[in-house]
Order: sequence, then structure tokens, then C-alpha cells
Amino acid sequence: MRSITLFAPATVANVSCGFDLLGFALESVGDQMLIRENNVNQLRITKIEGQMLPMQTEQNVAGVAGLALLNQLNTKQGFDIEIYKKIKPGSGIGSSAASAAGAVFGLNELLGKPFSSIELVAFAMKGEALAGGAEHGDNVAPCLLGGFTLIQSYNPLRVVSLPTPEALSVVILHPQIEVKTADARNLLKQQVSLKKAVRQSGYLGGFVAGLFQNDYDLLAASLRDEWVESSRSVLIPAFDEMKAAALASGALGFGISGSGPSVFALCKGVEIAKKTAQAIRHVFDKTAIPYDLHHSEVNPQGIKTL
Amino acid sequence: MRSITLFAPATVANVSCGFDLLGFALESVGDQMLIRENNVNQLRITKIEGQMLPMQTEQNVAGVAGLALLNQLNTKQGFDIEIYKKIKPGSGIGSSAASAAGAVFGLNELLGKPFSSIELVAFAMKGEALAGGAEHGDNVAPCLLGGFTLIQSYNPLRVVSLPTPEALSVVILHPQIEVKTADARNLLKQQVSLKKAVRQSGYLGGFVAGLFQNDYDLLAASLRDEWVESSRSVLIPAFDEMKAAALASGALGFGISGSGPSVFALCKGVEIAKKTAQAIRHVFDKTAIPYDLHHSEVNPQGIKTL
Repeated sequence: MRSITLFAPATVANVSCGFDLLGFALESVGDQMLIRENNVNQLRITKIEGQMLPMQTEQNVAGVAGLALLNQLNTKQGFDIEIYKKIKPGSGIGSSAASAAGAVFGLNELLGKPFSSIELVAFAMKGEALAGGAEHGDNVAPCLLGGFTLIQSYNPLRVVSLPTPEALSVVILHPQIEVKTADARNLLKQQVSLKKAVRQSGYLGGFVAGLFQNDYDLLAASLRDEWVESSRSVLIPAFDEMKAAALASGALGFGISGSGPSVFALCKGVEIAKKTAQAIRHVFDKTAIPYDLHHSEVNPQGIKTL
Repeated sequence: MRSITLFAPATVANVSCGFDLLGFALESVGDQMLIRENNVNQLRITKIEGQMLPMQTEQNVAGVAGLALLNQLNTKQGFDIEIYKKIKPGSGIGSSAASAAGAVFGLNELLGKPFSSIELVAFAMKGEALAGGAEHGDNVAPCLLGGFTLIQSYNPLRVVSLPTPEALSVVILHPQIEVKTADARNLLKQQVSLKKAVRQSGYLGGFVAGLFQNDYDLLAASLRDEWVESSRSVLIPAFDEMKAAALASGALGFGISGSGPSVFALCKGVEIAKKTAQAIRHVFDKTAIPYDLHHSEVNPQGIKTL
């Protein structure tokens, strides 16, 4: 029976200026998965280590995403999926996306690559919908494609791979509190003023240009969120203080990773990232809430076979 | 007395996907201006040919923009401005922007370039405010800088020069009807849904990426306007029919130039542009409204001295 072992990276979605559209993959945080052919004509989740998650295929994001792919092919071939979960569910760094994207990537490899990357993104979004109540692609796209990705359009689905300036370095702080994606979505205002919409749109356009031009000043000026951050940051203890500390340490920007509670800082260079990590840690220690702190480069490749 | 003669190009603002943010300069349509030192310590509009426009400095967009620059310098030097107007005011291809940008560009040259391009954009926006009731920079920026420009932010003002894919070719149809910028602004909805704001933002991000990647499919997919076009296009006779004809002719996109009434089509290559021009003309001829039809390349340089 053929099998594949892979690494599915954690991802940061929204990235301040690109709500539901922009995301990037992390290098040093991610899940391992093993996918193996079976002869029972079923897709099964046979092992989950590291976290308590549903084992029923239809209740598991990897299962749902995998079924979407297999149903499209109309194949009888069955597979077993083992998930070695390192990314904590509900952390805001794409835990469900890694499982969903890992499943469809692995199945596609074992089946002889019948599907394109963009089709895999669409299948993986079916898994995301199970977790978050809405199909969004700004975690699964960078998980599958690596680097920075932009969802140019959801309907029809079109994903653009963006360049990653070399010096970018990331700090993630994950407070050990629970913020469900669906709850975070309920906090959003459903209407924005045209003026604010225009401003926010300019930041996303500027950020995209900054990635192409290696313009760190432009990236910093564009890492702004006038749509979502003020509503959602109330769920994250010490958010404003951490943000001030990160920017004072020289970070290009600081914001909520996905729907939180994780926060991220994008920095130019490892030294500033280290300094920023120290500064954020110093602030958050005062809350007495447990947390994980990650330092990572941007992962240019996305999912890789091991 | 030193003088400068210059060409200030017409410009297309909004460009479907970048309301108030995105614009580009035209090659074959524009005004000529002559700016000459005088010894009366005043900025004067001494001649306007081609159109009826106010001669009083404070009532003329070139005068207002020029005064903004001179006041900042606190200079006593006076200048005379002659405007040879080829761009019809109210046409929607940056007539006021050309006058305002031309004035500040010429004054800056004669004064030894005390100001940066971005400062010139800010001065020229003062002239635009006189014409349109709001300071917007998506015409003056491409007029001054050439090519495609993005206003990443108005406050602080930050303008990004974007690359221009070589094959881009433009068709402009200017119906001889009057649409005042201020009236067109009053037609806008002041609120948009977050969903629509996100979608539109993705189109702008995609368009910016498309310019960097020479990806004409991506440009075509991104030349969409869900914010403004449906409200404003009712002012433009046969808009929907022209749009359908342009897209059927292979145009990448078709939309309102600025606040109208001019419409533009962006095309890949001169041949498709010619075919598109014919198709639009054919549709608009049925309205029996007089019009101008321009074909132009994108102007990479912006204002130039003659």
C-alpha cells in the first residue's frame, strides 16, 4: 500500500490589510500527516495524536476536505489518514487549514496529481467551512502554495502567489484562551463606510506592491486594519499594549492572526524579530495567561513531503 | 524671464477596481501649458485657449494648485500661466488634474525643484478640490508620475508607481454630455457591505499583482467595480451595451473613466483596441449623441517639458 508523509505548515490569515484574502505560511510550526492507501474503499481518520479531535470522517476537517476531492474523482480507492497535530485547534494560525490542506495535498499526490493547486484550495475550503462556518481560503491557500497568497476572487476562485521579501521574519504569540472562528465572525460589523472601504483597499494594494518591490516601508505603512481589528482585539488580552511594544521594537506591523487569539508581528530581519518577541512576551507575561511564543521565517514552499 | 512649455496628459482614474486610488496617464491626449516668470510678484492666468475657464487665479484649478506650492515656499517670485486646453472640462479624463499638475510641475521646475513628486501631488490635489469638491489624487498622481499609480494612503499621502505591461492599449469614448464630478459623487452609496468591500479589495490587490506579473488574464479578472459602476453608469447612455460590445471584442475591461461621462476600455495590443473602438463606436452611434473617440497607449512618463 502506497503512503505519503507530509508537513503541513501553520499559516497567518488576514495579515491586517487583507481580511479573508491575504495569508502566508510559516516555516517552523506545522502538523505532520501520514496518508496511506487502504483496501476498504473508505476514507478513514485512523489516528490523531496531540489533540482531541473528531475521528469520524464527516466530522473531521481533513476528512471533509478529502471526501470533497475523492467524490469529484468518483474513485473507489480508500485511504487512511493519521494526523500528528502540533498546531493547536482554535489558535488562529490555521490548524484546521493545515489538516484540510494536508489531506487534499496528500491524496492528490497518491492519486497521481489529477488536480491543480487551485482545485486543491477549493477542496480544502470545504474542510475549513466545517471548522469556521464559512468557506474561506486565506489559510488553505498559503498552506498549499507557500509564501504569501492573495485570494483575488472567491467566485470564481482565483488565487495569486505573491513574492516574499527575503528578510521577513515572523513572531507569533498564542494566548491559551479560546476564540472560536464563528464567534469572532459574529463580532464583525456587516457594513463599512465607503471611505473606510477605500482606505482599507489602498492598504491591501500597497501591501501587494510592497511585496513585489521589496519595499519594507510600504509594507509597514500598509499593515493596517480598519475593518476588523478594533472589533476583534477586545477578545485578546493586552492587545493594544502588545501592539505598541511590537511597533516600538521596530516591527513592520502587528495584528490578529486569522480570527485570533494568536497575534503576529512581521519584522524586517531576525534581530528585530527577536527584540519584538521579547517585547511582546514582556507585556503578555503581566496577564498571567499561559501562552506559546513562536519565531518563524515565511515558508516559501508550503506543504512538503517528508 | 525664464519659461517652460510642457505637455500635461489626460488620465483615467478609478480604473474600475481602484475607486479614488488607482489611475493611469494617457499618451495621445493632453494639454499644453506655458509658464513664465513675471516681475509683478503674482501668480496670474494670462491666457486660456480652447475652453472657457475662469481666469482669476483663485477660481482656476491651475491657479489654486500653483498658489498652494508658492505659499509653501514663501517666495515673492511671480509667474504667468498660459493654458492651451485640449482636454474638455467635465469629460472625466482628468482635465482639471492636468491643469493643476501642469502648474505645480512647471513652477517646481522653474524654481529649481524644491519639492518632491509626492509634494507636487499634494499641491495639485488642492486644485482638484476646487473642481470636484473633494481632494482626490488618482488623476494628478498618474499625470505627474506617469504610468499606473496607486494612492496607498491619503493621510499621510503615499503614492506608489506601478509597472505598466507593455501591450496595454486604451480606448476612450467621451460622450458630449455633462456629468459634474460633484453630482457623480452624490450618487454614491455611503455604506457598502463588508462582503462587497472584501471582494472589491481583492480585485484591486489582484490588479496590482497583475501589473507586476504582466498577467493579462489576472488584469481582466480584476477590472471589476462593485462599488460605484452600477450607481454611476445610469448617467451614461448605452453604458451596458458598450461594455458588452467591448468585452465581446476582447477588451480586458471596460468602465467609467473617473466620474464619467467618458468610458474607457483597456486592451491587450493595438489590434484588439482598434476592434474595441469600432465596436463601442458602433453602439454609441445609435444614441445620436456627439462624442470623441481616443485611442492611446499608456503614458509611462507623465508630464513632460517640450
